[in-house]
Amino acid sequence: MNTLQDFLIHRQQRVEQVLSKLLPGSEITPTRLHSAMRYATLNGGKRLRACLVYATGAALGVALEELDAPACAVELLHAYSLVHDDLPAMDNDDLRRGKPTCHKAYDEATALLVGDALQTLAFESLATAETPGTNATQRLSMIQTLARAAGSHGMAGGQAIDLASVGLTLSLTQLADMHVRKTGALIQAAVALGALAHAHIAPVLLKDLDRYARHLGLAFQITDDILDVEGDTHTLGKPQGSDELRQKPTYPAIIGLDQAKRLARKEHAAALASLRSLGDNARLLNEIADYVIQRTY
Amino acid sequence: MNTLQDFLIHRQQRVEQVLSKLLPGSEITPTRLHSAMRYATLNGGKRLRACLVYATGAALGVALEELDAPACAVELLHAYSLVHDDLPAMDNDDLRRGKPTCHKAYDEATALLVGDALQTLAFESLATAETPGTNATQRLSMIQTLARAAGSHGMAGGQAIDLASVGLTLSLTQLADMHVRKTGALIQAAVALGALAHAHIAPVLLKDLDRYARHLGLAFQITDDILDVEGDTHTLGKPQGSDELRQKPTYPAIIGLDQAKRLARKEHAAALASLRSLGDNARLLNEIADYVIQRTY
Repeated sequence: MNTLQDFLIHRQQRVEQVLSKLLPGSEITPTRLHSAMRYATLNGGKRLRACLVYATGAALGVALEELDAPACAVELLHAYSLVHDDLPAMDNDDLRRGKPTCHKAYDEATALLVGDALQTLAFESLATAETPGTNATQRLSMIQTLARAAGSHGMAGGQAIDLASVGLTLSLTQLADMHVRKTGALIQAAVALGALAHAHIAPVLLKDLDRYARHLGLAFQITDDILDVEGDTHTLGKPQGSDELRQKPTYPAIIGLDQAKRLARKEHAAALASLRSLGDNARLLNEIADYVIQRTY
Repeated sequence: MNTLQDFLIHRQQRVEQVLSKLLPGSEITPTRLHSAMRYATLNGGKRLRACLVYATGAALGVALEELDAPACAVELLHAYSLVHDDLPAMDNDDLRRGKPTCHKAYDEATALLVGDALQTLAFESLATAETPGTNATQRLSMIQTLARAAGSHGMAGGQAIDLASVGLTLSLTQLADMHVRKTGALIQAAVALGALAHAHIAPVLLKDLDRYARHLGLAFQITDDILDVEGDTHTLGKPQGSDELRQKPTYPAIIGLDQAKRLARKEHAAALASLRSLGDNARLLNEIADYVIQRTY
């Protein structure tokens, strides 16, 4: 049996269940909003970010139930960002993982409020979760970390730079900076939240994990860009070649497909190298890095 | 000298300064997003919610500097909600306080991200602020309270109900329920945050203050509806009669102007009655309630 696949499937199922309990039921007023929040969140995504929270916590010996709240929080933030990014004023996408995007299945105003309320719920879930092993100071650190990753210096800022970059020629450094904010910041936050669930995490280890997450985030994004060129529309759940059609700056467009693949492998190797101090405990995190550059969707 | 006016002006200036420091500078990347965040927030609003945080804290003897972070947080959340509410997919407003709305001054995508990032900053500011008098447990309670007020059961939910109510005939109870969520929840949160800044707030006092805030919120909203009928476009900073044009359910539309005025006075009296236990310490809060129903814009 493939251990990583087993881990991913179990954690995907777990976070799906916890999210389902956390999200208000579709029968609760306002029903349309709550139904749309569930539609946008409980969609069978890969849950890479939640799995990173769980895998980082596991590497440090943190109990599983201490990781549910941070795992849900990062997935809620990720779900909010996808709903808003898909809106006509932003990327104007009709399909997400092969299903109509939130504003297509509902309407624009609802999708706007869905994103808003999912972001709120992310912070609420971190502030509210009461587990024996995580104290108030740890929860505050998690909220700080997640907020910094999501805000105008992180994810939202990356999306602003992305929108401003359409049709422009970016340098490799500018492209990496955009992705470190847009996708990378939340991946780094996921790893950091898993680490902060440990009551006495050593600052040097937090730094190593952050370096791992930064390289992983870049490896993830470069692979995404490569898949957009090489992937198959059906497997991707979105039209292949959509980045090129939109004149979005991508790694293959700037440095070519071969160089992009080489760079993905380089970031992957750097991610693994960052975790040497963790020894065998880094196994799952290393396997996730392998998976990230080997995936086909 | 009018003491309330003096208090309001000083606190408005104070929160404006603290917000200006908290918001990233317009010269910091992404500059357009940061410039738009400042445009949408530093606009010389009444800062009623911040003033409620300060006035509640003052009534309980909380030091002024302990109230800056919660005061900023509620104003940031309020600012985010206005930017998103003004978007074409929602209320489609071109003017806000006599100036172009954020998506008119910038663009829709930027306004969407401005709202998103302002919400994040609200939670970040509460999680990050380090003052001697407020411990981690208090900050977590504030984040919980603010998130509940802002989310799908509160402000965002109220906006969803509001959008679904256009052109419908609501009962008085339904209208009040909508406003308790849409406007009331954040006003209640402002008062609660001022109270939670007190390290040992008695639960019974927290309840009295919450009742005050609930009645105040309704008095505020009924007055808003009355002003939309009777006010003057120039003083309001938005076209007079815009609720009626949009077929928005309002108090005057449902129960008539005279009954609406009577109801505003009733809510005002109930607000004052809620604070009897505070005695003289409630003076500022009482005067704010007077101001809310006497204002002309």
